[in-house]
Amino acid sequence: MTGLSPLVGLDYASVAVFALTGALAASRSQLDVVGFIFIACLTAVGGGTLRDMILNREVFWVADPTMLAVATVAAITVFFTAHRLESRYRTLLWLDAFALAVAVPAGVAVAFAAGHSWPIILVMGMITGCMGGLLRDIVCNEVPLVLKQGELYVTCAFAGSPLG
Amino acid sequence: MTGLSPLVGLDYASVAVFALTGALAASRSQLDVVGFIFIACLTAVGGGTLRDMILNREVFWVADPTMLAVATVAAITVFFTAHRLESRYRTLLWLDAFALAVAVPAGVAVAFAAGHSWPIILVMGMITGCMGGLLRDIVCNEVPLVLKQGELYVTCAFAGSPLG
Amino acid sequence: MTGLSPLVGLDYASVAVFALTGALAASRSQLDVVGFIFIACLTAVGGGTLRDMILNREVFWVADPTMLAVATVAAITVFFTAHRLESRYRTLLWLDAFALAVAVPAGVAVAFAAGHSWPIILVMGMITGCMGGLLRDIVCNEVPLVLKQGELYVTCAFAGSPLG
Repeated sequence: MTGLSPLVGLDYASVAVFALTGALAASRSQLDVVGFIFIACLTAVGGGTLRDMILNREVFWVADPTMLAVATVAAITVFFTAHRLESRYRTLLWLDAFALAVAVPAGVAVAFAAGHSWPIILVMGMITGCMGGLLRDIVCNEVPLVLKQGELYVTCAFAGSPLG
Repeated sequence: MTGLSPLVGLDYASVAVFALTGALAASRSQLDVVGFIFIACLTAVGGGTLRDMILNREVFWVADPTMLAVATVAAITVFFTAHRLESRYRTLLWLDAFALAVAVPAGVAVAFAAGHSWPIILVMGMITGCMGGLLRDIVCNEVPLVLKQGELYVTCAFAGSPLG
Repeated sequence: MTGLSPLVGLDYASVAVFALTGALAASRSQLDVVGFIFIACLTAVGGGTLRDMILNREVFWVADPTMLAVATVAAITVFFTAHRLESRYRTLLWLDAFALAVAVPAGVAVAFAAGHSWPIILVMGMITGCMGGLLRDIVCNEVPLVLKQGELYVTCAFAGSPLG
């Protein structure tokens, strides 16, 4: 993993922000702290896990379990502070778009480093960016944001792509 | 992949027909064009992706990204024509059964070529045939067709198996 | 697989008990026998399949397809007997907790045998224990038990861990 440090930085940032969105969704579903941590971790690592399984790489958080600690800390933070937010849904929307703009380049960079063709690189960016949030919305039984906010998602993804 | 051309033909056919069912489901959920393409691709490659991840093969659309282009074209076609259909649900049912009868032999052939035992070959046929549609129905929050139409599914699967 | 026999025994037990919970969920959703077998197999092998895909091991039921036969027998048994139960939901809750206490050590043992660090070992125990039931609840469109019963889950998981 040495020499890939900006890539790792992107992964950490997207894990943290996606974990925040997962914890906010758990807060909207009025779960207990176990549910917060569960949904936060699922959202945080879901997209990257699928990317790594499809590309047959070692899954990124198996290589570096600190990722899960970051997600857990984010979940616990939200557990104790979410009630102070004026609108959890609006915060969720903004964070989800922000996480997407960070996760897409992380996915793109991984696929690029593995020497894949550009359509696969693009698709891996999308999978890393969308699938965590999709899992979060399915488990919380909400209409997936990626389907309600298609245009926004595409805009964020393209905004994020060149960073990869 | 050379020497496997009938197999690849089956894969293309099942990708195209499953993409049509995914786009029809997106149409029933009144999504935008991004949603059409997303659900079409998910339905089209979902079953085969799971099959390849379980068998530890290279995922078929990573080896051949044209599959995703086929699914995207099918999605866009449905986006501009679905409103002309008399009954989208009836069309969806028929196409889903047809896709199953094509995807099962595709899955069977892959597992057979990899030298697996017959129970695994059968299960891989079922996974390739059912899982794409299951993902489509979960994401669109509908009762999975595979559960509503169990007998039909089994009939189609057995009709398709000998082709593999 | 030789020399791992207690591990295999745990896997069989968790497959059988999870299959029973899957078949009970199918009974609550009034599915036909195909639906019973489908949900039972999905619940029985879902968690372990995800564990093996993430750890890049051969998936346990591909190595030993008897697991699927065990799940199918459990499904058919429940199909013919579930109507005699006084409360299917209560039975489901108890069996789910019991399956968890068996599946967690199975997951822990696999990750331990593969030489992973302790956070990964713990997470693999949780994935093996929770994910089958989560898939069952998502496909049957119920609120996931893992989210409704967070504390119970954690208790069962910790009760089961030392056995691993």
